[in-house]
Amino acid sequence: MFAGQRIIEEVVKAKITFIGSGNLAWNLAGAFDLAGHQIHQVISRNEQTGQALAKTYAAFYHSSVDKLFSDSDFVFLALPDKAIRETVQQIKVKGPVVMHSAGSCDLNAISDHYQPCGVFYPLQTFTMERKPDFFKIPVFIESTDKEVLERIRELAEVISNEVVELNSEKRLFMHLAAVIVNNFNNHLLTQAEKIMDEHGLPFRYLRPLAMETVNKAFEGSPSKNQTGPAVRKDMDTLNKHLELLRSNSQLSDLYKLMSKDINPDLENRM
Amino acid sequence: MFAGQRIIEEVVKAKITFIGSGNLAWNLAGAFDLAGHQIHQVISRNEQTGQALAKTYAAFYHSSVDKLFSDSDFVFLALPDKAIRETVQQIKVKGPVVMHSAGSCDLNAISDHYQPCGVFYPLQTFTMERKPDFFKIPVFIESTDKEVLERIRELAEVISNEVVELNSEKRLFMHLAAVIVNNFNNHLLTQAEKIMDEHGLPFRYLRPLAMETVNKAFEGSPSKNQTGPAVRKDMDTLNKHLELLRSNSQLSDLYKLMSKDINPDLENRM
Repeated sequence: MFAGQRIIEEVVKAKITFIGSGNLAWNLAGAFDLAGHQIHQVISRNEQTGQALAKTYAAFYHSSVDKLFSDSDFVFLALPDKAIRETVQQIKVKGPVVMHSAGSCDLNAISDHYQPCGVFYPLQTFTMERKPDFFKIPVFIESTDKEVLERIRELAEVISNEVVELNSEKRLFMHLAAVIVNNFNNHLLTQAEKIMDEHGLPFRYLRPLAMETVNKAFEGSPSKNQTGPAVRKDMDTLNKHLELLRSNSQLSDLYKLMSKDINPDLENRM
Repeated sequence: MFAGQRIIEEVVKAKITFIGSGNLAWNLAGAFDLAGHQIHQVISRNEQTGQALAKTYAAFYHSSVDKLFSDSDFVFLALPDKAIRETVQQIKVKGPVVMHSAGSCDLNAISDHYQPCGVFYPLQTFTMERKPDFFKIPVFIESTDKEVLERIRELAEVISNEVVELNSEKRLFMHLAAVIVNNFNNHLLTQAEKIMDEHGLPFRYLRPLAMETVNKAFEGSPSKNQTGPAVRKDMDTLNKHLELLRSNSQLSDLYKLMSKDINPDLENRM
């Protein structure tokens, strides 16, 4: 070997099939394609998005699970939680590792009916338009079988720098935490945007503050970072804010609950 | 003029005094010092932090407002809202532009007793340890006097790329929105951290998701980004989560309220 020559370990091309053609399927397909794997087949009742996804990655498209090929290495059930168990029961072939990617769905939704199987859960919110940096997204994996788990790990490590084995019970707790930081904060941001809009203030003014709140939380501990009128028991400011919310009982209730949660001393004062 | 020679407009060195020596004073002093202004005097009842701040920027230190110099260009009341009005009444000198930096405090807390005056409100959460990029932080300014407002604008533009005139009423609404995206989200992050801790899961797993939630909100509109079990009316997942929170009535109440706010259809289902 010459000096400077490097040994490049070639990734064995895996054949990957998606059942479902929503945001998750599009994002995973993009990441696996970039990593050199082959998107083999797309199965989706939604012809428009299913065919589009198949076409993008030169894969076969079918509308029914009956048509699932037996020569895929991995099959992703990129479906709503409810549809997972039902869809697994329609699988007639044997061979591929069948996985779901749902935070709150137990592995047994697959393993009760089909093996080899597993879970491949990337902890992120996906949309069609945005391409997140997949390497930073932690992927949580699970399987009933040790050897299958290693195959899933190998697949995950091609697109993510953080691959962690996690059982279904802990995954459910993590999904709860994810709903809190994503869906609930998005609700807060929606309320803040509404207030800004109503007063002709560009929402973007709040961006540095909203970003700093998250950065600070993860560089220390949010439990030590709390500031603002509630934690200070600053009744003047709390009452001024509640006065602004007089005609918005929904946000007013949320404001009171949040403030009391932040500072239990406010319990009988709001 | 030689080719390549540049005309450098020299910033006239302003003398700046801080009454108060907390997080805001430290952060503003650092930004103004960096911009070439002079930290002239620090007045603080807290001798330790007051003297430390004065020493850091080679300024005079005094413990009482009686000792305020008359030759400062600007005096910042970097104080809790409650202390502002009372402190203004102790000012005996004439000359400096006296400003507060409080989101929810009316300009008249100063102007009722002292002129020339104004508001200089940087929309950010400050701590001692972190040095935010000040140029990205919007600064909201106000004054009773047009000429004074221009002097404040000039001062603000040295440290921020976004300086906006805003009256006290609108500033109060913006402060309410700021409490929602900062204090309330910090509370959500605290709850998520607790759940992760309780199950031996590193909090940092949630960071990419929490960051993406904010980035996505400001690159589109959070009102269009809502995902998750509440907006999908996914009762299975909602009930699983509530089951996990059975012994935590506080977070359970917050979960229900948030979910119903996100999707009013859930009103009688949780």
